[in-house]
Parts: sequence; structure tokens; C-alpha cells
Amino acid sequence: MLKTIQMLASSSGFAASRWRKPHQNSFISISNYSLSYPACGTRRPINPSLSLPAISTRRTRFYKATRAQSTMYESNMDNSSPVAVRISADIRKINFCQWCGGPTKHEIPDGEEKMRAICTLCGKITYQNPKMVVGCLIEHDNKVLLCKRNIQPSYGLWTLPAGYLENGESAAEGAMRETWEEARAEVEVLSPFAQLDIPLIGQQTYIIFLARLKKPVFSPGPESLECRLFALEDIPFDSLAFSSMLVTLNLYVEDLKTGRLKFHYGTINKRPGTSPSDIRAYTLDYHLQS
Amino acid sequence: MLKTIQMLASSSGFAASRWRKPHQNSFISISNYSLSYPACGTRRPINPSLSLPAISTRRTRFYKATRAQSTMYESNMDNSSPVAVRISADIRKINFCQWCGGPTKHEIPDGEEKMRAICTLCGKITYQNPKMVVGCLIEHDNKVLLCKRNIQPSYGLWTLPAGYLENGESAAEGAMRETWEEARAEVEVLSPFAQLDIPLIGQQTYIIFLARLKKPVFSPGPESLECRLFALEDIPFDSLAFSSMLVTLNLYVEDLKTGRLKFHYGTINKRPGTSPSDIRAYTLDYHLQS
Repeated sequence: MLKTIQMLASSSGFAASRWRKPHQNSFISISNYSLSYPACGTRRPINPSLSLPAISTRRTRFYKATRAQSTMYESNMDNSSPVAVRISADIRKINFCQWCGGPTKHEIPDGEEKMRAICTLCGKITYQNPKMVVGCLIEHDNKVLLCKRNIQPSYGLWTLPAGYLENGESAAEGAMRETWEEARAEVEVLSPFAQLDIPLIGQQTYIIFLARLKKPVFSPGPESLECRLFALEDIPFDSLAFSSMLVTLNLYVEDLKTGRLKFHYGTINKRPGTSPSDIRAYTLDYHLQS
Repeated sequence: MLKTIQMLASSSGFAASRWRKPHQNSFISISNYSLSYPACGTRRPINPSLSLPAISTRRTRFYKATRAQSTMYESNMDNSSPVAVRISADIRKINFCQWCGGPTKHEIPDGEEKMRAICTLCGKITYQNPKMVVGCLIEHDNKVLLCKRNIQPSYGLWTLPAGYLENGESAAEGAMRETWEEARAEVEVLSPFAQLDIPLIGQQTYIIFLARLKKPVFSPGPESLECRLFALEDIPFDSLAFSSMLVTLNLYVEDLKTGRLKFHYGTINKRPGTSPSDIRAYTLDYHLQS
């Protein structure tokens, strides 16, 4: 199920970030280790000439863009803290305790650093955290399996089978479940392939596994119009549903060219001022590989 | 901040799993790809002789254990579904809508497969999803940085700096923030090292990065009694706070022995019938490497 994923991308604009302590961003850095760290063991350098279609690998020190009206920045650590913390304004929309129904107040609890919704009756704190979206990149006969979406957003566009991880299942189990739901395919998870954080749109992290069909049988589930195997040269890059899928498939194709499938970590950030529906208007920041 | 992580490990027992459709578990499999999949590119086989201290790599078809009274199993997909879905009984504790305060009902929404808490007034659905715990394995002069906990659970025991990922930050940013909060250390994230799911205790996924100190300065934050660099042979394996840290440090030490640091994915499952406080009483299932 990937019904609401990246909905915000279609409904929110972008604005310049606002910092309580603007200087703090200068302390943040995440580097491509191959460029900043001597090789240890068999750590591999990232090929600086790697040029992925539609991927702009930008090495900023911190984000320049954020989602308007829904994210604000805050630092409640002491002045020497090198990390500024953004908090979601969504916390202010939590007006009631989900357990006892009492009204909430919005304060920084004792011993914590961030504003939370705290019940004024029972004292319980409601936390909000990023969600994981889990999916499979399914290889079969040198092709990959994609699903054409039967639901909004991105109705009619192609995606890997993926959806929110549920409580009580591992990421690999969730990825297999989503594959069944969307492509009626039984798969075997082979290896982790990518973790792609999208912290400023929908507070999501994509966890994508390489997988293979246990038998060459698949058909569209209720959320798919069609499921199809695509040869690499036929992948519909112009009709993909989400930036995360574009990044994943680009990395996969590039890895195959180099003859080695790696594990990729990165952050997808929308480029300021671009159309929310333009899935190519992003940068892949802090791209690390193992 | 890692205040409440694995609290359930100290408060819950284990019981045999309960299935609505017991046969379904026979459909589930996640294999060590090196054993079940021909090499592709430079995928590496997992050394079957790899014997990590305290790690029992079990290749079950599905979990045999679950947390008593807090997790139940459900499958609402059609009969041909290969995936049984566990849902958390915690959803039944959500009695009120956090947005409007209306009472909730617990039903399967139209078009979904799982029971949710649905507001009877505004209709909004409250979802529950696993949380990410992000942390750093910090290398410095062939030593690793550990923190002695100043808070419960596991007061006085050693851990990597780690805590819950917050909305609005990437996993790497969250890991750096936690490192600052717990060890007052500025670090540079080098590469992803491990994703360890703990689906049956606390619904958590650990995301651990390799990192290095930007300068050799650190000191305990409020949640730490002490921070110290340990040579590999001095790592206090008998005084670690959590199974997740034991697994991570074991994998790290074993990787160094082989001369190559890899990315590890796996699921930590508590062994049935063992003491919740025994952090060695687990199995590392579905261990995959990239």
C-alpha cells in the first residue's frame, strides 16, 4: 500500500528555511567517506565521474529548502551544540490524547529537547517519528518488475511495489507483503539495496531490497492497473511515479554497468522553486555506498 | 536520546505465536541470498563458517516467538496471500482521535487490510508504524566510542550513541544529533553499517552508521555517565546495554577480521523462554550483507 506516500509533494510548496540559530548549519557535514576518509579494509571509493541520469549529487552542508508551513526549526540544546533540530509543526495539530481523550499542551518535557504534545490529564506524551516505506526491486531474466498505479497520487505512473512498514513485521517481510499486495508476486529477498531518506516531504525513509520471483507469476493487485517486467533499456524513466523510484532505478542501472550491486544510502531533497510534481527536480545528497 | 528503547524487553514475556491461518507461515521465506541465489555481479557469499560470539544465525521460515499480550496476528488478504500480517494490539488502546478528540472505533477501513483506529467524528485514521533508532559506531585510532548509560533501562551499561529519529531529519543527521546529545562529540558519518529490525520488541529498526570524530573531543552528555574509547579487545561485551549493540559490535569486529566492512541487514528476535534482560538470548535472523 502506497496510497498516501509523497502526497505532500503534490500539495506543498517550498520556501527558504528558517533558522533560530542560522550559524549552526555550518557545523553540519556528512561527507562521502571515500573522499574524506582514508581507505580502510576494502572500502571502496565512489566514482566521482559517476553521472546518473536525473541525479544531481549535491554535497551541501545542510538543507536549503523545507516544506512551507509544515516544518520549523528549533534548537534547544546548549549553545555549543553542533546540531540544529527541525521539528514538525504537525505536533501542534495534536490537540487530544489518543489514550484518555484529555486535551494536550505543547511543551518541551523535562529532560527532553523538543516540543511534544503532552496530555494535561494523564501526562502521556505523543511522539511523531518518520515512517519507513519498504519495497522490492525484483529482478527476473535481466528485467525488473514495475507496477502501474491504480490509485492517487501518481495514478497511471510506474513504481516498484512498496508501502508503509507495519508494526510487527521486519522491513524485509513488509517489502514482501507489499509486493504481494501490489503485484501478487511471491518473492525472495536477496539483499538490501538502498535506504533513501526524504525528511522534508512526508517524513519518510525508503528501504528497498533486491528480490527475485519465487515463480514467474504475477498480476496486478487492487492498487495496480498493470504489472510488467521491463528490460533495463525499456524502464519507463519518463513515467515513474516518485523521485524515490527514479533514484533507486538509476542507481540500480548504474551499478549493473559497473558490474557490482552496492548498498546505497542517501537523502532526497526537492530543489527549491521547482514544481512538486516534477519528480526529477531533486538532489540526492549525502550519497554513501557500502 | 534512548530512554525508552527496548523497555518492553524488560517488561514483557514471550509466548508461542498465534496464527489465524497457521499454514501461512510456510509460505514465508527470506534467504541468505548467497546460499540460494547464483552470484550476480560481485555479490559476495556469506561465509557459512562465520561464527560470531553471541550471535546465533537461525534461518527460520517465520518467527516462532512473539511478545505476549501485545501482538497478535491477522491476515485479511485473500486466501491465496502468501503473507500473514501481524498487527499490534496497541491499536485497541487508541480510544480517541488526537486531532478532534472524538471517540475511535477499531475496524478495517475500506480499501485496506488491517485494523485501524478510526475517528467516529472526523473519520481520520490513526496509523502506527515502527520507529527508527539511529546511531553511530565511531572509529578513532582503532578504537570505538561507547557511552555508559545514565538512564534506565540498562543504567550503567555501555551502548553506542543512538536514539529515535525525529521528524524532519535524515537518518545520518539523527545519528549525528544523538552522538552530540550523548557523547558531546562532533562526528562525520562515513558509511551505512547496519540495519537491524526488532519487530517484536518495541517495533524498532536500528540504523547504524560508521562515523569518525571530527576532532578528538568528547564528554558525557546528560544521558551518559561516561564516554570512553575502547580498543577492540577491550570492548565490554559483558556489559552492553542492548542486544542491538551486541550484534552491531560483533558484526563490526568480525568484519574487521575479514578485512572488509560491509553493510548488514538482519532481524533480531528474542529466543522464547529466555530472560528479557539477557541481551544474549536472541537470534539474528535473515542476515543479509551487501
